[in-house]
Amino acid sequence: MKKQLDLTLYLVLDPLLCGGINGMVNTTKIAVENGVTAVQLRSEQDYSGKNWYHAALALKEVLSNTPVPLLINDHVDIALAIDADGVHVGQSDLPVEVTRRLIGNDKWLGLSVSNLAQLESVPWQLVDYLGIGPIFPTTTKKDAATATGIDQLTKLVNTKQCPAVAIGGIGVNNLTEVVQTGIEGIAVVSAICGQADIAKATSELIKKIRQAKEEIGV
Amino acid sequence: MKKQLDLTLYLVLDPLLCGGINGMVNTTKIAVENGVTAVQLRSEQDYSGKNWYHAALALKEVLSNTPVPLLINDHVDIALAIDADGVHVGQSDLPVEVTRRLIGNDKWLGLSVSNLAQLESVPWQLVDYLGIGPIFPTTTKKDAATATGIDQLTKLVNTKQCPAVAIGGIGVNNLTEVVQTGIEGIAVVSAICGQADIAKATSELIKKIRQAKEEIGV
Repeated sequence: MKKQLDLTLYLVLDPLLCGGINGMVNTTKIAVENGVTAVQLRSEQDYSGKNWYHAALALKEVLSNTPVPLLINDHVDIALAIDADGVHVGQSDLPVEVTRRLIGNDKWLGLSVSNLAQLESVPWQLVDYLGIGPIFPTTTKKDAATATGIDQLTKLVNTKQCPAVAIGGIGVNNLTEVVQTGIEGIAVVSAICGQADIAKATSELIKKIRQAKEEIGV
Repeated sequence: MKKQLDLTLYLVLDPLLCGGINGMVNTTKIAVENGVTAVQLRSEQDYSGKNWYHAALALKEVLSNTPVPLLINDHVDIALAIDADGVHVGQSDLPVEVTRRLIGNDKWLGLSVSNLAQLESVPWQLVDYLGIGPIFPTTTKKDAATATGIDQLTKLVNTKQCPAVAIGGIGVNNLTEVVQTGIEGIAVVSAICGQADIAKATSELIKKIRQAKEEIGV
């Protein structure tokens, strides 16, 4: 059965920040026990297909008895190979139409957008959710676009036609204003990956998100 | 209908050496008119999924009215997306078992091997051909293994259980001794890609291969 997609706290695993496959597996285990609602394995250029495959398999295993879905960034073949719950593609990855054709309708499909022009060209009937960002300047993604800031994010949130997560430079200290735009969830990388106390970091994030959501009544 | 796989002169397209997608398309067109029997699109780390997809689509179009098959290196998703004739994987790509499961039995599957240990672990029932190399030191593949040389190649050719191409530093001046090992074909990158006269370079290669094959009576 297809796992539900709850975008509230969406963990993007960075293989380097986590310290390889074992680090990603440990991070995921603790983060999911403490409130993470979705997990994405992010692309890492230096990873070979074999490493990707084994990382994805190990993560699928960790998430197998949880309600938390695993999404694979970019590598549609890896997603198919391990029967992941979904795929996330960026603007320069395999086009959405092709990706949807390859994965069928039983897998979640997310798309990254950075600005209004990209948002206006989203094929809404093919996409399940958006990743909007970077909201703030980020250090974990080398090829990140210009940061949108809160005003531009608000405009994008008001225009979009499907759920979305905000990503890029978001942590416990600045997530409230992001959540207050009405966006469904927050995606984090370094706010969890590489943190000394992953349980505590995750708990604080989810608590703060829920508080902010309560304040705006969602 | 499945295209035949003739390994005699196997062109590996290097996007950088060819000068991008248009360069690869032109190179392929001329090379196929002059004797190339199979074409592979090689991985290039700096290429995005979108670029890969469009390059592969363009190459498929060029080869559509020819008997020459198109094989995609590494990116199984791209091969599936454009319905390529086959896939070529290396030792650190998606495992052969997984690749075969994803592409089914109607596509060719090639595997790179560099030494006897790798050759002895080939799942012969899943693989259609091998790429053996590098035979000589090569400049077009940064992560190439140690060159096998002719003696080691002869041992590998005598041990293998499926057809193979030799690759790595092979050109018109040294291919005779390679063909004389009894290997089915020669794969080239820089002996065609980036050559000033691709028609002439290809004609000379195929002529020399056929001569060498005649000399050993195959």
